[in-house]
Amino acid sequence: MARGYSKQEVPLHKIRRYLEPGPIVLVSSCWKGEQNIMTMGWHMVMEFSPSLIGCVIASSNHSFELIRKSRECVINLPTISLTDAVVGIGTHAGSKMDKFAHYGLTPEAIDGVQAPAIRECHAQFACRLHDDSLVDKYNFFIWEVVAARAAKTPKHPETLHYTGEGVFMVAGKVISRRSKGMLAKEPD
Amino acid sequence: MARGYSKQEVPLHKIRRYLEPGPIVLVSSCWKGEQNIMTMGWHMVMEFSPSLIGCVIASSNHSFELIRKSRECVINLPTISLTDAVVGIGTHAGSKMDKFAHYGLTPEAIDGVQAPAIRECHAQFACRLHDDSLVDKYNFFIWEVVAARAAKTPKHPETLHYTGEGVFMVAGKVISRRSKGMLAKEPD
Repeated sequence: MARGYSKQEVPLHKIRRYLEPGPIVLVSSCWKGEQNIMTMGWHMVMEFSPSLIGCVIASSNHSFELIRKSRECVINLPTISLTDAVVGIGTHAGSKMDKFAHYGLTPEAIDGVQAPAIRECHAQFACRLHDDSLVDKYNFFIWEVVAARAAKTPKHPETLHYTGEGVFMVAGKVISRRSKGMLAKEPD
Repeated sequence: MARGYSKQEVPLHKIRRYLEPGPIVLVSSCWKGEQNIMTMGWHMVMEFSPSLIGCVIASSNHSFELIRKSRECVINLPTISLTDAVVGIGTHAGSKMDKFAHYGLTPEAIDGVQAPAIRECHAQFACRLHDDSLVDKYNFFIWEVVAARAAKTPKHPETLHYTGEGVFMVAGKVISRRSKGMLAKEPD
């Protein structure tokens, strides 16, 4: 198990490095003393600065009301060592158990929000609600990332990418085309 | 080069298999006889049925106006054999060249839209504009997928996942947790 990564702050406009590749994430939340975790695959980067993330959180999730009422959450990036927790959290309702305790995950504070981050994850992004105009229609939330930190190593974590039907693709080899200038649209 | 894949139709509510893992995609469009292709990394699945995809298309892209005016596009899924085309298309303005010809890509018809699909891609999703309410504010488009097809093999294509700064992660090994029931939220 990957526990207690030593983490460093990530500039807020650089979080695309972690989320644009499309990993499954764990979303932690807290409202009036109740905390929960959900597994989420439907999310995207929307802007560099302010650092915006869009995501769909089905209203059938126990986390939906905690997140909607608290107007905040933490998006945590699990890696392959947490596969069983990702699957378990994705298939069991949070109303019936303490998911931190059940899956051996450690809540820890992160700047900017009351919701707890998950220590065992590779990266953590504290999010405050930026735009809820499409929540009623599509369960679509737009978040501003207000704090971000990630493990220093490994540089390229073995993230999980969900394809449906219980099957995950694991992040594979890395190739660079830096010399060809695939930098045009990125801020420094 | 992977050319002329034999493709089969994909049920519209099953396209998450291809897009939820977060690959970089090529978006093809056409308006009044002008066609173009752009590289896109900011997208997500939003609903099974109707089959909805959300994406951000920066207004600085030459494709933006073609897509906004035609209210349609095709989202194409490239694999590692098309890396140089993905990078080239992502770094050169479409106003200055015919990207199909320049990168040796073949436009082909797909049901439901006038925009051409890209034959050399593993999968193709024809999209009609479903909701433009956040286009002005975030360049955020919500599409309904009206036709979908994908190559029969390989079952798990080597898709490209962009991390910024010219670096791509390539889809790696596949692991299954099907027996643990990670199916709860999926339609049949």
